[in-house]
Amino acid sequence: MNKPILAITLNPAIDKVYAVDDFAIGGVFRPRAMTATAGGKGLNVARVAHLLGEPVAAGGFIGGGNGRFIAEQVRESGIATAFVPIRGESRICINITDRNSVSTEVLEPGPQIRAKECDRFIAAYRRLLVNCAVVTASGSLPQGVPADFYRTLIGVAHVQKIRFLLDSSGEALARGMEGAPYLIKPNQEEAEKLLGMELTTVEAQAGAIVKFRAQGIELPCITLGKNGCMAGLADGVYHFYGPALEVVNSVGSGDSFIAGCAVGIARQQGLVETIKLGMAAGMANTQFFQTGMVSLELVEQLYGQIRFERVRSY
Amino acid sequence: MNKPILAITLNPAIDKVYAVDDFAIGGVFRPRAMTATAGGKGLNVARVAHLLGEPVAAGGFIGGGNGRFIAEQVRESGIATAFVPIRGESRICINITDRNSVSTEVLEPGPQIRAKECDRFIAAYRRLLVNCAVVTASGSLPQGVPADFYRTLIGVAHVQKIRFLLDSSGEALARGMEGAPYLIKPNQEEAEKLLGMELTTVEAQAGAIVKFRAQGIELPCITLGKNGCMAGLADGVYHFYGPALEVVNSVGSGDSFIAGCAVGIARQQGLVETIKLGMAAGMANTQFFQTGMVSLELVEQLYGQIRFERVRSY
Repeated sequence: MNKPILAITLNPAIDKVYAVDDFAIGGVFRPRAMTATAGGKGLNVARVAHLLGEPVAAGGFIGGGNGRFIAEQVRESGIATAFVPIRGESRICINITDRNSVSTEVLEPGPQIRAKECDRFIAAYRRLLVNCAVVTASGSLPQGVPADFYRTLIGVAHVQKIRFLLDSSGEALARGMEGAPYLIKPNQEEAEKLLGMELTTVEAQAGAIVKFRAQGIELPCITLGKNGCMAGLADGVYHFYGPALEVVNSVGSGDSFIAGCAVGIARQQGLVETIKLGMAAGMANTQFFQTGMVSLELVEQLYGQIRFERVRSY
Repeated sequence: MNKPILAITLNPAIDKVYAVDDFAIGGVFRPRAMTATAGGKGLNVARVAHLLGEPVAAGGFIGGGNGRFIAEQVRESGIATAFVPIRGESRICINITDRNSVSTEVLEPGPQIRAKECDRFIAAYRRLLVNCAVVTASGSLPQGVPADFYRTLIGVAHVQKIRFLLDSSGEALARGMEGAPYLIKPNQEEAEKLLGMELTTVEAQAGAIVKFRAQGIELPCITLGKNGCMAGLADGVYHFYGPALEVVNSVGSGDSFIAGCAVGIARQQGLVETIKLGMAAGMANTQFFQTGMVSLELVEQLYGQIRFERVRSY
């Protein structure tokens, strides 16, 4: 068997969806239906990479009864778990959807991580990396985790020559980028925030990619929603795009993009093939109501339809 | 040590309170503060009886990570646990309170109990009763539990000559009453529903108490909120009432009433003293923001201020 993809979610959650009728402030509601699933961006990555046929291990912090629920559900879906237990309780993210499809969300902050637990995570991560094909890290940092934690993880991966795909935002992303991850994928808005400038034209976006490359990020991408993505390959910046699709639910498409790219890297495919697989997985995800869901058939079909052109040479 | 009070909650919950600003339908909220406590009417009974100084064991069904959280919290508060584990997951009751003190509640239905689990509960209960002073059972029946389950539990208690205090509503109460529990405490509205008649006068309420006595319930009560309660003692129906208090939070006062009565019975006090202790505990609970909280000092002080008069002789 191939070496697994290690998909990290530092702040996983139980995603609870309550279906209620005519939700209103001040009322008492007994849900018509409810679902509880292991959630968090990195768990979507793990699920999609698993659906694409690669071995995956899910890592991160889990705690309490909620943490046990998350780990059990991940294991039941066929994904190996490499979670580090913490004293706090993993969070619950609540989505109350009424019959008019209006969603109201209450997102718990998640547990406070202690310094000792961060150390324990890094030690476990260092051991796991020895047998990994590639690492992904997705989402926000839980409370108590230092802002440069992704940078630390990236440093360890560099030493072991393992490629690190970072998908985060705000300070966690900015500080993480200082460690020069192999791939980042901010969307246009996040990239604008990182660089403090507007990126509304192809030229500006290509310029941003060049800047990211200059920071040591080998394969920087900027995702553009239905307009595909810009990616900095070896010889220039390329625009990748697929056929127009009617979107069912785009939540989790960024995670699916990371999963596709991680699978491409794990299979030692070329850069173009890697980005194409990311694109195909992200697009396939938009066709399912469920977050972080793709079908292998659809990914393969879309993969053949991804086009790309060079928009700037280095 | 005295024999413990067994306080049963068949459908316990984690009560979660989220403090949010300006809660609104369709928004995404990150709570300013949150609390999670083991909840359910019988757990309030257990907590208050424990605060009154009696040994208590909490029984009921618990399942999954939520059930473990509930059992751990109960144990940490100094109460013995005698829960029966189930395959399902214990429920969460969510209260979203915004800064204007408007509460919006989402109450999960709770787990489905299997027939085998009911049998296991009865077997455990039968063993526990041998060493109990008195039993209380509070709240609704979880899904899958037969409507006459309280009646079954009462029958077992009768055989072992243990007094059974039943605090429920609707069909669970009506069917339970067929087993002739020692004490019931419907409020006026519930008593009206049970008898299918209005009970707006003292005479009508006293008549209802006589009817409940005729069904074999030795110490029936009807609680009347700030007007105290009617109780059927050995020689007639008595009205018990206390001083007028400014209410802070009345939630859990009925449970505190049951706790006070159970403590009185466990201590083999007379009927008048038993109801007075129930009244004092129920009133003391209204003085605390926290549900199911009393102080021993306040209960003792209020106990001395409870008055009673006979409103009807048998």
